[in-house]
Amino acid sequence: MVVYEDKDFYIQKELSQIPWLKIFTKEPYKELGDMPKELRLQLWQVYDIVEYEMKSYYNPTKINMASFANMLPRVHIHVMARFENDNYFPNPMWGEKLRDTALTLPDENLFFKRLKEALHEFYSQK
Amino acid sequence: MVVYEDKDFYIQKELSQIPWLKIFTKEPYKELGDMPKELRLQLWQVYDIVEYEMKSYYNPTKINMASFANMLPRVHIHVMARFENDNYFPNPMWGEKLRDTALTLPDENLFFKRLKEALHEFYSQK
Repeated sequence: MVVYEDKDFYIQKELSQIPWLKIFTKEPYKELGDMPKELRLQLWQVYDIVEYEMKSYYNPTKINMASFANMLPRVHIHVMARFENDNYFPNPMWGEKLRDTALTLPDENLFFKRLKEALHEFYSQK
Repeated sequence: MVVYEDKDFYIQKELSQIPWLKIFTKEPYKELGDMPKELRLQLWQVYDIVEYEMKSYYNPTKINMASFANMLPRVHIHVMARFENDNYFPNPMWGEKLRDTALTLPDENLFFKRLKEALHEFYSQK
């Protein structure tokens, strides 16, 4: 599910127990270092906004981020809000599952709305 | 083992089958977004250099990067050179081990030397 899109990037929701987004560039690149410098800087600005909005909306124990793309070499950034009682904490989401808990989280639609507003504001100031 | 150090950052080697470095800020921060903006930009520049040098020295199948710090909330960046025949590929290094292979890699000391030179050159141009 795409929750945000502009001319350079789109953001997808990953189905998971936790808030988990993936930031893609529209143009595909294999590695971060293959992106033009300006776009790379912009990606980190988009990342900063996603991290900030996730942190302020969900108040997670920790933010996790990662970029692998080993199966399909098309670089993208995972941003995850982790909670000390989520199913894998403190393991990475790719590690061993440690428990089976039901997390009670606020409405994700309001989060997506706030994130979109923050990204639109960022772009309108550029 | 610390393979590089300057006034803002240090880089540690992680013991692993694959080339794996961890970039730390000297000042501890919980999240990337807690870092002063200037230092964050500098971190991504250091990351770019580490990625570039790893890629050109080892010619890996894919670069992986991640930031978790769930056990000890002190943000740092993992940079890993992945090979299609390494023990976990295409899984992340935190995922299920898939095989037991011996990788033949070039001398890491020459890589550390080249990385240090590239970082020193970057700093001398600032």
